[in-house]
Amino acid sequence: MQFTSETAITDEVLKTVALTPTGELSNIAEDSFFQKLSDQDFMRIAVLLAQQSYTEDGCPIGAVIIDNQTRRIVGKGHNTLVQDNDPYNHGETAAIRDAGRIDFSKTTIFTTLSPCDVCAALMNMRGFKNVVVGDVTNASGNEELLREQGIQVDILEDSQGIELYAKYKKEKPELDLEDWGGVAAVNRSKS
Amino acid sequence: MQFTSETAITDEVLKTVALTPTGELSNIAEDSFFQKLSDQDFMRIAVLLAQQSYTEDGCPIGAVIIDNQTRRIVGKGHNTLVQDNDPYNHGETAAIRDAGRIDFSKTTIFTTLSPCDVCAALMNMRGFKNVVVGDVTNASGNEELLREQGIQVDILEDSQGIELYAKYKKEKPELDLEDWGGVAAVNRSKS
Repeated sequence: MQFTSETAITDEVLKTVALTPTGELSNIAEDSFFQKLSDQDFMRIAVLLAQQSYTEDGCPIGAVIIDNQTRRIVGKGHNTLVQDNDPYNHGETAAIRDAGRIDFSKTTIFTTLSPCDVCAALMNMRGFKNVVVGDVTNASGNEELLREQGIQVDILEDSQGIELYAKYKKEKPELDLEDWGGVAAVNRSKS
Repeated sequence: MQFTSETAITDEVLKTVALTPTGELSNIAEDSFFQKLSDQDFMRIAVLLAQQSYTEDGCPIGAVIIDNQTRRIVGKGHNTLVQDNDPYNHGETAAIRDAGRIDFSKTTIFTTLSPCDVCAALMNMRGFKNVVVGDVTNASGNEELLREQGIQVDILEDSQGIELYAKYKKEKPELDLEDWGGVAAVNRSKS
């Protein structure tokens, strides 16, 4: 195994985890490796996925879903608005799709950015009970709504993720607007 | 051209339209053909997509998006919970993905079933202004919410679609529950 409980946790190691397909993670990492990862580490993996999307000219938002008991990653992904020409595949949706038809009430989702209205509704509808948000500076709003629905929401800010999103928003304000409000919002802003 | 303004509108013709990839529709049908189609015809195309999903052992929910001016179909699809092992790809999402990054405020979406919380939020966020719902008998709830958000919602019941969904719900109540509430809801119902 490449990664064991002895492996030092560096951004390089976490990046390998981020970019390895979920189904192949058991080939490169022992159970004990995942048990050693902290919540901060999982949030960093989500940020590294956001970074990957940024390098693909996409919206830099990522998410990771772990099993609460084993702390193994069961799903992960990043926004693909640009990459897939998909009006709605946010970080959360991408990770949920990657996980497939599982019981999300036994998992925790780490998302790099405060969830939009659609993702908030989606996480509630799919039965999530634990949501960790990495950035409430660049976007914010649905944390209270999720809590009212009985979901535990923790804020675990990742400075790299916040910095990356701020940079992207400044570079591509139109893309940011489209991701949150559709092409209709972009056209309204021009008229 | 296979379909012109002279073509008689039958379920067979509409099924061909339903099952032809959206990008290829201009090869088989003239503009005048689409202009001749009524709202009922577009809803029937959505129902035929739901029927297709049913024959694939999936959830029988379909949707069609048309351009308001040309009345050409710009996106269509059906639920793929089973087919793609996807926790959230409802009829509306499938059609929206198929359409890609367009201005949905200039379109109308025909959905065979009353939209769930996630799809209602999604249609609002992507800027839809016109939603037509084919079945408020087997599911209902978000029509008023959408209207409060300034969206015109019309009910245009299709008896074939209503009958099909009622049959499916009776045959596969667990799948219906999962589609609306996730695996967590199914597990709760068993305990």
